Amino acid sequence: MSNPLSPSWLSKPDDANALREGVWPGSAVRNTEGELVFGGVPASELISAYGSPAYVVDQEELELRAKHFHNIVTRACERNATVGHVYYASKALITGHVVQWVSGQGLGFDVASGGEMAIALAGGAPASSLEFQGNNKSESEITAALEAGVGCIVIDAPIEAERIDSIAGSMGMVAPVMVRVNTGVHADTHEYLATAREDQKFGLSPAETAKLVAVIRGSKNLHFEGLHSHIGSQIFQVEGFLEAGTRLIALYRELLEDGPVATINLGGGFGIAYTEADDPMELGAMVDQIVDHVAFEASKYGIPLPALAFEPGRVIAGPAGVTLYSVGVTKPVVVHDDQGSEATRLYVSVDGGMSDNARPALYHASYSARIASRESEAEPALVRVVGKHCESGDIVVSEEYLPGDVAPGDVLAVPTTGAYCYSLSSNYNALGRPPMIGVRDGRHFLMVAGESIDDVLARDQGFSVKAGS
Amino acid sequence: MSNPLSPSWLSKPDDANALREGVWPGSAVRNTEGELVFGGVPASELISAYGSPAYVVDQEELELRAKHFHNIVTRACERNATVGHVYYASKALITGHVVQWVSGQGLGFDVASGGEMAIALAGGAPASSLEFQGNNKSESEITAALEAGVGCIVIDAPIEAERIDSIAGSMGMVAPVMVRVNTGVHADTHEYLATAREDQKFGLSPAETAKLVAVIRGSKNLHFEGLHSHIGSQIFQVEGFLEAGTRLIALYRELLEDGPVATINLGGGFGIAYTEADDPMELGAMVDQIVDHVAFEASKYGIPLPALAFEPGRVIAGPAGVTLYSVGVTKPVVVHDDQGSEATRLYVSVDGGMSDNARPALYHASYSARIASRESEAEPALVRVVGKHCESGDIVVSEEYLPGDVAPGDVLAVPTTGAYCYSLSSNYNALGRPPMIGVRDGRHFLMVAGESIDDVLARDQGFSVKAGS
Repeated sequence: MSNPLSPSWLSKPDDANALREGVWPGSAVRNTEGELVFGGVPASELISAYGSPAYVVDQEELELRAKHFHNIVTRACERNATVGHVYYASKALITGHVVQWVSGQGLGFDVASGGEMAIALAGGAPASSLEFQGNNKSESEITAALEAGVGCIVIDAPIEAERIDSIAGSMGMVAPVMVRVNTGVHADTHEYLATAREDQKFGLSPAETAKLVAVIRGSKNLHFEGLHSHIGSQIFQVEGFLEAGTRLIALYRELLEDGPVATINLGGGFGIAYTEADDPMELGAMVDQIVDHVAFEASKYGIPLPALAFEPGRVIAGPAGVTLYSVGVTKPVVVHDDQGSEATRLYVSVDGGMSDNARPALYHASYSARIASRESEAEPALVRVVGKHCESGDIVVSEEYLPGDVAPGDVLAVPTTGAYCYSLSSNYNALGRPPMIGVRDGRHFLMVAGESIDDVLARDQGFSVKAGS
Repeated sequence: MSNPLSPSWLSKPDDANALREGVWPGSAVRNTEGELVFGGVPASELISAYGSPAYVVDQEELELRAKHFHNIVTRACERNATVGHVYYASKALITGHVVQWVSGQGLGFDVASGGEMAIALAGGAPASSLEFQGNNKSESEITAALEAGVGCIVIDAPIEAERIDSIAGSMGMVAPVMVRVNTGVHADTHEYLATAREDQKFGLSPAETAKLVAVIRGSKNLHFEGLHSHIGSQIFQVEGFLEAGTRLIALYRELLEDGPVATINLGGGFGIAYTEADDPMELGAMVDQIVDHVAFEASKYGIPLPALAFEPGRVIAGPAGVTLYSVGVTKPVVVHDDQGSEATRLYVSVDGGMSDNARPALYHASYSARIASRESEAEPALVRVVGKHCESGDIVVSEEYLPGDVAPGDVLAVPTTGAYCYSLSSNYNALGRPPMIGVRDGRHFLMVAGESIDDVLARDQGFSVKAGS
């Protein structure tokens, strides 16, 4: 019988050791001792080499996902007699290693700050493969982008066009620019993540875009490259992309009357499965439908298809990452409902939490978990995995079944943490951030060093001052 | 006329330069040039010395608030013939300077990790004034706490009692401990912040607490000091505290039958006004009512009142802090409602956002704002202040009226950012975290150094590796 506290989407598994398909990196298996192994490296080896908690990234999984996305875009565009480009959305997860791996598969980079640009360049990405985004680029960021020679700057407001015009002019160069369009399409997703409805900060309406493109075309310091749209995040259905495509092609047709429009960038937002409740559309079919639809819309007007670009992030990095935690405390909590009947939820406290994964608190995001250090035949129990922060919203996995003998000392693995976990990590409660470890072919290597307490205190200037200052 | 997009709680001000009472530090004024001044230092001087954005903390405001809380607790407890203690909730804001300032007013520290403990000790707080909290303390944290000689460890689960017993035993010492009680009281607050209902990670039910206290009293390595409760955060009404007090006194009476119970800690959670919509109960009256109520409950049973303790954090640090940002982009966005009528919201983009203040995204928290660098007689306009992150939920101030001529180059000040902003800050989008600056009597000084792009990249190990590794 399921626990009455169990949500309807979560089924009690026959085997709470089994790895649910689609949420774990391809290399994740249990070895003969029953321990979880990633990229050929047992979880215990990672914990003893780097400590706990730790972010683990499966290099091969990340590379295969980048390559797959590049392939399906290239294929769909070739079939429609145009060119496809893929820019990896750096905000999902960007480190020096990740840049090399993604760049090696032929993808460019969508960067949204001077910091992301610096990481992409330091990691060896060609500047021409960078697309510089954002609703508020500073003058120094624009200058740095132009000096580096980024492939394109995506303009978000008229004042940015003036600013780039002026900086490019003073540098004696021509800045390649696109314009971010607010198509007004609502993608079906969590409110916070929807980035193309009217009442939000990004982009310009189609009418405002047309006006701004005329200004850009009139400037000798700017070169208009095309249109950019992004309709949301963690999107499971294709409809929003199709509607955005329809609106973009209509605008593209209007703009073609006065000059060339090389590229339409349809953005990212492709969803992944975090739990068994999630059922995203197959990626190849989704991209095929989008590209075919845009081609059809263009053909209706008898106009050529521009180059098409996409910006996947989560769908490449998310399922390549797993976070390892150690269990410190388990505690059954008896909960009474309005009728007075009782049920018990087992709280499992781990040594990280909302500092290393803010998504459950930020977006009510759901995750899954497995014991990594051993298999167990104990009856599955409904658990809530919580962190060690001083806050009741500090939840790591809100609802999951684990072997009921889960206990202090066990290592837990939480999959699909490759995207937006490291990116959003904090030092809440003065916790050091975990290290990030790459794994491949039985080897492991440090990608990002973890923080000690000394590291957390290092910026503080208050330890040697006199009282009263 | 108000903007139709304006929420009902927000009134259009006659003067969008005026400082709303209760949300700004006491030292905040406009100087004769119309510029905002904090602790005697003009905003422009802070920005030119430290860059933008910057956290600013008014030392005197923070000290006065700490002192005030200490005074009202002492007074209320003395009137009821007992002793009062105040522990500052470090998670709200802890740095070396803050430790000195708070410690100097006679408060102890509630610390919830080895990191917070390290900061409190390095900042000069006596170890005996520390109370070590948390639902999952590691063995090394417990060892460090006992070695330092903290005043008390608050036990959250039976397994923690065993662990502390064992560590204290091996060190040949007696550990002073309290037990965290889950009273089941729901404080009226945002779901995430309610920390004392049944179905959450903290504490033990009264029945479980009684069992554990018997175990603790039976151990020669543990000394039972009392009960701890915490019912939530950002609480405006006293009722939840009173109900928790009633339940704690009933449990206290039961425990008194078998031995002494020195202290009841009623926790924190006292709310502050972030905007004109917030109307928290006056702090002195709130503490008086709680203490009087607990004394009355004890008197009903004819038992002596224990020492009482409180743990304020936000109410001390929150209103002492202001974040300064620079405006980079302004953009009017036309929004259509279902009937097709139009309204315009002015989006004001600043150079920080959810990386330096995660609370709007995490808790739908509201803030207010003012132009700091000048006064303006322009007609007030409804604005939304947004950050520079690549995410539509990256909102700094969701709804506010500012002078309609707010423009790039203006410095904005957002008040009540002293608590849970620095604590929860991240490097999202590879942004460096801002510096924190103390101000007092016309002087300014660095409390926490800001991060450069190089600092953000410093932990990354991926910049010198060969391709393929």
